[in-house]
Parts: sequence; C-alpha cells; structure tokens
Amino acid sequence: MNETHILQRLRGALRTGALITEPAAMRPYETDGLTAIREMPWAVALPGTEDEVREVLAVCREFRVPVVPRGAGTGLSGGARPVRDGLVLGLSKLNRILEVDVDNCVARVQPGVRNLAISEAVAEHGLYYAPDPSSQLACSIGGNVAENSGGVHCLKYGLTVHNVVGLKVRTIDGDTLELGGKGFDYPGYDLLALLCGSEGMLGVVTEVTVRLLPEAPAKVVLLAAFRTLEAAAGAVTRIISEGVIPAGLELMDQLTLRAAEDFANAGYPRDAAAILLCELDGDAAEARALQSYAARLFEEEGAYDIQQAENAEHQARLWAGRKAAFPAVGRIAPDYYCMDGTIPRAALAEVLQGIGELSERHGLTVGNVFHAGDGNLHPLILYDANQEGQVELAETIGREILELCVSVGGTVTGEHGVGVEKLTPMCAQFGAAELAQFERVKEAFDPQRLLNPGKAIPTLSRCAEYGGMHVHGGELPFSTLERF
Amino acid sequence: MNETHILQRLRGALRTGALITEPAAMRPYETDGLTAIREMPWAVALPGTEDEVREVLAVCREFRVPVVPRGAGTGLSGGARPVRDGLVLGLSKLNRILEVDVDNCVARVQPGVRNLAISEAVAEHGLYYAPDPSSQLACSIGGNVAENSGGVHCLKYGLTVHNVVGLKVRTIDGDTLELGGKGFDYPGYDLLALLCGSEGMLGVVTEVTVRLLPEAPAKVVLLAAFRTLEAAAGAVTRIISEGVIPAGLELMDQLTLRAAEDFANAGYPRDAAAILLCELDGDAAEARALQSYAARLFEEEGAYDIQQAENAEHQARLWAGRKAAFPAVGRIAPDYYCMDGTIPRAALAEVLQGIGELSERHGLTVGNVFHAGDGNLHPLILYDANQEGQVELAETIGREILELCVSVGGTVTGEHGVGVEKLTPMCAQFGAAELAQFERVKEAFDPQRLLNPGKAIPTLSRCAEYGGMHVHGGELPFSTLERF
Repeated sequence: MNETHILQRLRGALRTGALITEPAAMRPYETDGLTAIREMPWAVALPGTEDEVREVLAVCREFRVPVVPRGAGTGLSGGARPVRDGLVLGLSKLNRILEVDVDNCVARVQPGVRNLAISEAVAEHGLYYAPDPSSQLACSIGGNVAENSGGVHCLKYGLTVHNVVGLKVRTIDGDTLELGGKGFDYPGYDLLALLCGSEGMLGVVTEVTVRLLPEAPAKVVLLAAFRTLEAAAGAVTRIISEGVIPAGLELMDQLTLRAAEDFANAGYPRDAAAILLCELDGDAAEARALQSYAARLFEEEGAYDIQQAENAEHQARLWAGRKAAFPAVGRIAPDYYCMDGTIPRAALAEVLQGIGELSERHGLTVGNVFHAGDGNLHPLILYDANQEGQVELAETIGREILELCVSVGGTVTGEHGVGVEKLTPMCAQFGAAELAQFERVKEAFDPQRLLNPGKAIPTLSRCAEYGGMHVHGGELPFSTLERF
Repeated sequence: MNETHILQRLRGALRTGALITEPAAMRPYETDGLTAIREMPWAVALPGTEDEVREVLAVCREFRVPVVPRGAGTGLSGGARPVRDGLVLGLSKLNRILEVDVDNCVARVQPGVRNLAISEAVAEHGLYYAPDPSSQLACSIGGNVAENSGGVHCLKYGLTVHNVVGLKVRTIDGDTLELGGKGFDYPGYDLLALLCGSEGMLGVVTEVTVRLLPEAPAKVVLLAAFRTLEAAAGAVTRIISEGVIPAGLELMDQLTLRAAEDFANAGYPRDAAAILLCELDGDAAEARALQSYAARLFEEEGAYDIQQAENAEHQARLWAGRKAAFPAVGRIAPDYYCMDGTIPRAALAEVLQGIGELSERHGLTVGNVFHAGDGNLHPLILYDANQEGQVELAETIGREILELCVSVGGTVTGEHGVGVEKLTPMCAQFGAAELAQFERVKEAFDPQRLLNPGKAIPTLSRCAEYGGMHVHGGELPFSTLERF
C-alpha cells in the first residue's frame, strides 16, 4: 500500500492538524493505563465530528488499515494499545453533551465526554450518572462503554451496560447503528448490550444516551471491624442475602487497613483483622432504617466495633482511607502487582483463605482491598523487582489467584477488562465453543478484522498453543501477564 | 429428503412417545397465545433430557429441518408459531430445578420450569424471582428468556435480562455455550444479553441461572385519583424523577377503571378521569417513608383522592380491579384489540392525548390501562367484529398508535415480543443498517436459518416490499396485524 497516499486521504478526511504522524507527538498514544506495554502507532487521528469519524473509517476500510479506538487512555488492561501498522482513532475531541432530558432522566453525550462531567452537568437538576470507576475524573464515557466499567457503587446501581439506554455506533462497514433510545425494552437482538464491554472490537461508539439517577437525599457510612477475615466475608454474604443492597460495600484486610490508616488517618481500628465500609443511601428515613438494620446484622456476624458516620465530614474521613489504600500499600513495598478477578459472593471466605495460603507458600505478602459486595477482588501482591525471581514469583501467585477465581465459578477479570493483559487467562475462562462463537460474532461486525485487532478475545489457535505449552499436572493453561 | 427416515432418526433420538406426528395430538402445538394464527407442524418433539435436545438438533441440522423452540406456548406475538415443514421442539419436559444456592441468591433451573414455580421453590428461604409476566402461573423460564419478559414489577426489578445471570445454550451447530454464572460481570462479548429476547432464533436454552431477591419485608399500595389523564401522566414522570422507584406503577383511565370497578368492586373512585396504582416496597420504615413522600408528590401533581392501603386485604382489593381490567373491558364491548408499545415516560401525556384524538377521529373507543412507570402502553381498542369495517378500523387505529409510539422515540412492542405479529412494524422501528446487522448476527449463530425461521426480525426484502407498498403521504410503512 502507498502510505503517503493513505495519509493524504486521512488528512483530507480530517480538519487541519487532526492527523498526527510525528513520533514525538504520538508518544502519549503509545500506551494506555497498562503502561508496561507500549507500541508506537502508524498514525493518530483525532476527529472532531461524527462526519470525520465516518470519513476516517471509510479510508481505513478501503485500505485495510487496522483501527484502534481510544477514549481517555485510562484503561488498565491495554485495550487501547496501538498496533504498529494501525491508526489510533482518538475520540477525545468528540466531547459535547448534546442533550439533557430531565423529564426522562437521560442525557445524550458524545463518546469523549468525561464520566464525571456528565454528573457535573446535571447536578443542578439533582441528577447524576451512577457508574463511577476510580478514574472517573479522566475516563470517558466511550471508554466506559467499551470496557463496561463499574465502580464502587455498581453493586446497587449496576455496570455501564445497566446505565446506558442508547448508543449510536459506526461499524467498520460504514453503517450507523441506532440502538436503544429513551424508552424501555427495545425489540430486535440486544446489540446495545453486545456493544457494551466489546472493547472497540465491534464498532466505534459515536453517541451515548445514559440514564440519570436522582441524587439520594441521604446517605450513611458504616465501618464494621472484625476479628477474622472469614467473619468479614461472611457478613458480606449475610447482609446482601437479607435484602440490604448497599450503595457500596468494601473490604480491607489488616495489611491494607493499617497501611491506609498510617497514610490517611481515617480512624480505622488497627487491631481489626478486616473492616467493612458500607455505604447506604436513600430517603432520609430509609437510610436510617437500613443503617440500624445493617449494624445489627454486622453485630450478629461478629463485628466488635461499629462506627456510624452520618455527617459528611466523618463519611469523607472513612472513605479517605479506602481511596488511599493503593498508594498507601505502595509505601510499604517497593512494588505491587494488582490483580482483578470476580467470584460468586458466597465464595469470598474460601477464596480469601486460599489467597492467604498461596501467599504463605510462595513467601510474598498479599494485601486485600476490594469491592466485596459484588465479589470483585483486587489482591495486591507485594514484591521487590530488584530481588531476583520476585517478578516471576508475583506472576505465579497472580496466575494461581485467577485460577482460584475460575475454579469457584468466577472470572479472570473484574472491572479492568481483558485488553491485551488478560488474553491468555481468557483461554481458561472459556472453552472452544464460546471462543468460536465470539469469533463468529466478531465476523458479523468486522469481517476484515480491522477494529482493535488482537484484543479482548483470544484466538482459538492462541489458546490451543498455550494449552499445549502449559497444561501439566492439572495446571490451568495460562501465564497471567504475558510479555509483549 | 426421506421423511420416514428422518422421523425414524428423530424417534431414535428420543425416549418412546416423545415424538408426535399424529395431527390430533399435534393440535395443541398449532398455535401459542396469539391464537388467531395457526399452522400444523410437521412433527413435535418433547425431549426430556439435555442429551435428547442435542440429538434432536443434530438430526435437524443434518437434514435441514427447521426447528421452532417452544416453552409453555403462552407468548402473545406468535413467537412459537410452527412452520409447516418444521419440528416444534417443546421444552416443557425439561422442568427440573437443578440447584438453589441461597448464599449466592441464585437458582439453576431447566427451561421448562414455570416462572412462578421458581418463587414457590425458594419461598422457604424468603427469596423470590422478580420478573412476573401476567402469565407467570403457566409461562416457562425458557420462554421468558426468549421473549425477555417483564411484568408489573420490572420498573424496579428489571426485565428477564436483568435477572438472569447464567445460560447454557445449545446452538444449531451442536455447540454448548456456557454464558455467565454466579459471579458479576463476565468477560467476552455479552452473548447472555444477546440471547435474552432473541426469540429462539440464535440457540436453544437448556439451562437458566436466575438471580433471586429477598422478599421485601413491607409493602404499601397507594391509589391516587386525578381529574385529568394528563395530570396522572404528569405524576408518573414526577414521582420517578424525584427518585421514588415504585415496585409497580399502573395507570387506568376512566373507561377501564369504571369497567374494572363494576367487575371487581375494588373501591375505585368512579368520577376520576384516571387513577394511578402505586406499589412501594422495602424495609418497613423505608416503605412507610416512601409512602408519605409519594402521597405528597401525588397531591402536588393534582391528586384529589388518595387511598393508602397498608394491610394485605386492602392491597389485594385495589390490585383486583387492575387484574380484572381486561376481562372487565371485555364485558363492555363485543371485541377489543390490545396494543403493546413503549414510549419514553415523559411523553405519556402527549401520547395519551394523541390516542384520544385517534379514537375520536375514527369513532372507536380506546381504553387505557398500562404499566405507566416504564412507559409500556396497552391501549384497548373497542370494536364489534360483526359490524362491517370495524376490524379494519381497529387495525388502522392500532397502526397509528404504534406510529405515534415510534414518532416519540418509543417502540412498536413493549413486553409481548415481535414473533410474527410485529414483524412488519419492525420495519418502522429499524432502518436497513440495523436490520442488516441483525441478519449478520443471526448468521453468526445459525447460518442455515433453521432456528425459528420467519420470526422476530423481518428480512430486508420484506421491509423494502412493505415500504414500497405503503409509504405515501408520509405514512409509516406497515400494517399492524398482518394476515397469514
């Protein structure tokens, strides 16, 4: 292919300055939040209108140029990693809020709008957009759709797929798909849900209609301290099966709560084996009722210390420790490796115990701080990269933790997505039948495989190869973090 | 094809007596809940195990026999209508509850299990399965998945897709897809959501894992009476945008509330232009708090009479009128035509006014009784089939009502599905790009088009043909209920 000609065509499709080919200027696009993995793309396009998106895709289709869609680049699994001979299609300039429909409680926005900017724009109406990944200040709604992002509050308020009611999608074939809308339950195959979490492999989202929720008038935060990790895990299962759905329910073990307390002075009881932070919201009377009910359940499950934070200042202090947990752990070990997996809630105690055993067997400390309500684990494996063999050891423990998640019916990734990081673990998650069906679905949208090649869904041959290489003694067929 | 040979093969795949070919014995399978449309199938298979399902599908694939999956046959849009040269695959014998996992609040069941049977089986644990289509006594969970069924409580508790966490699916290619599970947020394309509502066109569901909810400890029912239909519609929008999500929120206009009152003595105020029935649930204190908040909002929106039913007897009486509305309307007119469409909630007043104008212009009475909270309309068009031209007139009004729904951003079907009834209206709902994409997705699962042919998704040529025939003066291109 004549590169100069293609670049000329791409330049013609975009306003001046919106096509970047200089290596120095492309450097910010080399990687996303998974910074260990970098690749210089062939070019970067930053369209400012839907028409420009259409034109750019048409050129890529014509000349078979791979396209890597990119939101804010905050993803943690390398979903926006460039490919060397491909175009990065950055959607950050499509950042307008097109409509706020207060009566129907929806907003129609472009994909580059930041997650938090939606809530800010509708706050005057007492509304907000619920999914709140920890990157919400920076991450874009288009990226949220691609990764089906969650957050602290997704236990009660759902993932992105539960809060997006309409999508406008541009397929690589040049079609515009209008999916869903402001109503409820659209007919036809549920392509909207299919697009959510498809990591840019099926189409490019050019418009998102999100559901807005009324701000809860009241909220309370409870801290419950337990003498064993198992008791805290049991309390998680208990409270939810009793019908209390907290807005957020986080667990921190002794290692992380102490590190966080040293860092943030949150008022955590340093002698606890584990604490739960439980946020309850609703109407004022409702929140109060839930609060006393939850406190009673925690006591019954063995909580020996309960703090009930009703004012904003106390609540913020309790949350400050949780929010500081990752940097706080960063102070007590030279390196840590953050895992991300999900398990059925009732398996929490068993899996936490299993993680403790792995830690002991391999001699590396593992901290636990995670979204307990939805069973989304974030084990932090502490190591020192300067000590020989510790990187590999950390990876071994990581792989074994994910194996443990799969073995109890969980997943190899919670909220961070598959991207390039979890491609091989996906071979353990799914069998050949599901992978083949994924392939056929991909083909139904992108037969030339131009959209975000090499992400999210491993090829059958990749899985077969890893299977052949790694399966021995019943070990699951993957190495957790591949090298690129 | 050698019919005798194929039948022999099918008989070999099933236990004795599970293949029906006698016309008299096949009569119950001629139609589903859309009884106006009948077709005698070639044969009916009633497998009793998953292995039998697999064997039957293998024979059908080998000999290219069309397969019409069927649950309990209660569907209202002809989704289980047989095809003349095809096999009806009845799943009613796969009716075992395989597992109740109380700690994880899920149950794993076979597709033929009745909707209500799930709640009955888990009631001893204080749990229930939330989606409650009005046919829940008879309809099966497999059929619910196929149609993505809703019910009175889906405003708060969601549709089937929001309450199913795992599916085992047998594709026509012979693959078994294991989708989702007991955890949260599985990776890979969201084929689980794609299968929900796909009306048996993509695969045969052989196992369903459903989410169970704890029974709410308390509930209250409010009746609010309004002097105008518009005020009642406005109150619906208001209450939800103020953050109150009722467990159920139904609207009845004067015609239907009077008919229901005559029938059921529910205590409805006969002078009201419209009433809302609003069910609120939760913890006792929470339900009480919501109750007084909702009552105040209804008053602010113009309610002149509010009944607050706190005891079960009073609540049952208020609901009895709503439940009797359809038969009650059946007493005041020889025939009625029940429509089903969904609109964005805030358009309720506008669409109800539009329906009133259509009724006046065409000279047929239209009653309104529907799931107001989720904007799911059920206009009842009263007519007399013995009077010349009234059937056609009813269909004209019906078509124009659906056009009205689409014009405000709504849908041509709410909870009844597309089946064969709404195939042509789907040509108004979707453009060529979406229909072509649906086709490609179908092909990705069922390239030979053996699964439930002719349902749910109209072909492009069908839409083009109807477009060519009907579009004039801006009229939308469909006739509501086609004749077969």
